Amino acid sequence: LRIQGKFYRTIWALGEAPTVHIIDQTLLPHRLEIRTLARAADAAEAIAAMRVRGAPLIGATAAYGYALGAREDPADAGLERVRDQLLSTRPTAVNLRWALDLMRAAVLPLPPAARASAAFEQAASIAEADVVSCRAIGGHGLALIEQLAARKGGAAVNVLTHCNAGWLAAVDWGTALAPVYAAHRAGIAVHVWVDETRPRNQGASLTAYELAGEGVAHTLIADNAGGHLMQQGRVDLCLVGSDRTAANGDVANKIGTYLKALAAHDNGVPFYVALPCSTLDWGLASGVGSIPIEERSAREVTHVTGLAADGTLNTVAIAPPGTPAANPAFDVTPARLVTGLITERGVAAASRGGLLHLYPEQAGTPA
Amino acid sequence: LRIQGKFYRTIWALGEAPTVHIIDQTLLPHRLEIRTLARAADAAEAIAAMRVRGAPLIGATAAYGYALGAREDPADAGLERVRDQLLSTRPTAVNLRWALDLMRAAVLPLPPAARASAAFEQAASIAEADVVSCRAIGGHGLALIEQLAARKGGAAVNVLTHCNAGWLAAVDWGTALAPVYAAHRAGIAVHVWVDETRPRNQGASLTAYELAGEGVAHTLIADNAGGHLMQQGRVDLCLVGSDRTAANGDVANKIGTYLKALAAHDNGVPFYVALPCSTLDWGLASGVGSIPIEERSAREVTHVTGLAADGTLNTVAIAPPGTPAANPAFDVTPARLVTGLITERGVAAASRGGLLHLYPEQAGTPA
Repeated sequence: LRIQGKFYRTIWALGEAPTVHIIDQTLLPHRLEIRTLARAADAAEAIAAMRVRGAPLIGATAAYGYALGAREDPADAGLERVRDQLLSTRPTAVNLRWALDLMRAAVLPLPPAARASAAFEQAASIAEADVVSCRAIGGHGLALIEQLAARKGGAAVNVLTHCNAGWLAAVDWGTALAPVYAAHRAGIAVHVWVDETRPRNQGASLTAYELAGEGVAHTLIADNAGGHLMQQGRVDLCLVGSDRTAANGDVANKIGTYLKALAAHDNGVPFYVALPCSTLDWGLASGVGSIPIEERSAREVTHVTGLAADGTLNTVAIAPPGTPAANPAFDVTPARLVTGLITERGVAAASRGGLLHLYPEQAGTPA
Repeated sequence: LRIQGKFYRTIWALGEAPTVHIIDQTLLPHRLEIRTLARAADAAEAIAAMRVRGAPLIGATAAYGYALGAREDPADAGLERVRDQLLSTRPTAVNLRWALDLMRAAVLPLPPAARASAAFEQAASIAEADVVSCRAIGGHGLALIEQLAARKGGAAVNVLTHCNAGWLAAVDWGTALAPVYAAHRAGIAVHVWVDETRPRNQGASLTAYELAGEGVAHTLIADNAGGHLMQQGRVDLCLVGSDRTAANGDVANKIGTYLKALAAHDNGVPFYVALPCSTLDWGLASGVGSIPIEERSAREVTHVTGLAADGTLNTVAIAPPGTPAANPAFDVTPARLVTGLITERGVAAASRGGLLHLYPEQAGTPA
C-alpha cells in the first residue's frame, strides 16, 4: 500500500540473481529505510531484530532467507542449518515453520544445482499467495463492516485494533486492517482506534503510520483505554491479527489482545480475528497453555525510543535504574471470546468445527 | 515511607507561618525535588500539573491550598474563589471536593482574623487522618495477604497493582500498597507485578520507585501483560486504589483498571480496591456512565519523557507527527467485578449494603 503516495510492499526480490529488500520497520515511523538482505543470516537477523514482524511477513521473510541460503550452499546439510537458524529466530508465529516446511518440500527433492532458482520461485510464490490471501480476507471482512455501517446511518464505523496487523505485518494489505482498507476504498466511513501496543509501540509507530498513508481516519490510544471506550459504546468492532491459531480457535496474538477480547465480550462488541491459513496450527488441539510465548528483553519495557526535538532518534529510561521487568510478547485469547475468524476462505466460527467447515481437507490432521 | 533510606511524606507544612512542601512527582524517578507551595495558586498548579496526584494526596493538597488562600485573603469571597479554583483542577477524584467541603465547614463560620490558622490546623488534621486511614487499610489488607500466604507455603504472594496507589498517592503508606508494606514488615514474602500505567507511566516512575525504597520485590510489566500473567496462574491478588467509588461499589480508577478486573474475574483472581472513606461518593448511586472521566492531553500519548543516556530529561515522539490521540485518564470498574473494598473500617462487599454495613451513618444519604 501507500507511504506518502508511493506504493510499497514490505518485502520484494529484484534482479536475475535476486537481492531481497525490506522496509526496516524498527525505524518507522521516523525514518523510511530500505534494507537489503544479501544472505540467509541477514534474513534471520531481520526477523530476530523485528526489522520485519507480523506473522505473514515473518513467513515470507523466512522463505526468502531460505532461498538466499540455497544460493550460498545448496547442499542438504547447509539448507538444514539455514532452516534451523531461521526457525530459531522467533517462537510464537507458526507462519515461520509453515513457510520453511513449504520451502524444504519444494527444494530438497531437486538436484543441488537447481535448488537456488527453485527456492527463489517458491519464496516469491509464498509472498504472492500472502497478498492474495490478505486481499480475500479484506473482502470477507468488508461484508462485516458493511453490515455495521448499514446500522449506523452514515456515521463512521469504529474499529479497534491491537498491535499492527496491517500491510506492514504481511506482504501487502494486511490481515486485520485488510477489511478496513477494503471498506475505505468502498467509500464506507471508517475510523480506527489504534492501541499503542506497549512495549514496542507498534500501534503508534506502524498502524498509525500506515493508516495515515492510506488516508484512513484514526485515533491513537493507550492500551489501557479500550475497555473504557467499549463500555461507552464507542467501539463497533474489534479486529486483530494472530501469530498462531490453534485447531480449536484459541488465538495467540500480541500481548494485551486477551484483555481487549474480555472487554469486547463484556460489552457485546464483536471481536474478530483475521488470519491467513498459514497462521493455523492444525497440530495444536488448543492454544491456552500450549502455544510458546516469547519472552523478550526487559529493556523494551524500561526504555522507550522515539524522535527527539532535534530530529535524532533517542532512547530514554522511564523506570528507575535496575528495575526488573518481564516482557511476555504474546498472549492467548480463548476461542470462547472470539466472535469469528476471518480467513481467506471466509468467516469461520472459532472452533474446530467452524474451521473444518472452511478447511475440510484438514479433517484428518491429528491435533 | 523511605526514599534511599530517608523518611518522607508526600506533603508537609513547616513553621509558624507555615510553608507547604511537596515532592514534585513529575520528576520522579529521575530526580527527587522538593517544591514549596507558597500560595493557593501554587497548590492548584501542583494538582493540575500532577506534581501531586492520587486521590488522597489531591485531597490533602487542596486542603493546604485552601489554607494558603485563607492566609492570602480570609474574606468569604476570596475563600470561595480559592475553592472554585482548586475544585476545577481535576474532575474525577472526589477527595478534592470532600477535603474542600471539610475546609469550608471548619473555616467559614470563624471571624476572618481566625481563619488562616484554623485552616492550617484543619489541613494538617486532614493529612494526619489520611495517614491513620491508610495505616488501617494496611492492617485490614494484611489479613487478606496472610490468608493467601498460608496457602503458598512460603512462596511469595504475587500482587498485581495498576497505577500508583502507594504512599506517593496518599500522605503516607498509600491505599493499595499499604497492605503490601504491612505484609513486607510482617515478614511475609510478597512480590508486586507493577503495571507500567500508560500514558503517564506512574507504575514505572512511582510504584517501582517506592517499592525499591522499601525493599519490596517487584517486576515492571507493560499494561498489556496482566491478563496473560493471571491466565498463567502467576497472580494471587489484584490490589488497586480508587479515585471515586460510587455508593453501589462501582470504582473509578486509573484508565486500564477495568481491563485488569475483567481478567481477574475470568481467572478467579481476587480483585480488591483499597480506599479511605474520603473516596466514597455517597451521592452517586452508581458509577458506570456517571463519574466524570477526565480527558487529558493527546501529547501524553504521543510523547514519552524519560532519562536520556547523557543524564538529561528528554521527551521523544513515538507516533508520526500530527497523529490524533485520545486520552481518557480513568475508567469505571463495575462493582460486579470487585471482590471487596478495603477501607479504614474493614473489608466491605462492593455494594450499597456492604458499604452501609461499615458506614451505617450514611444510610440516610440520598444517592
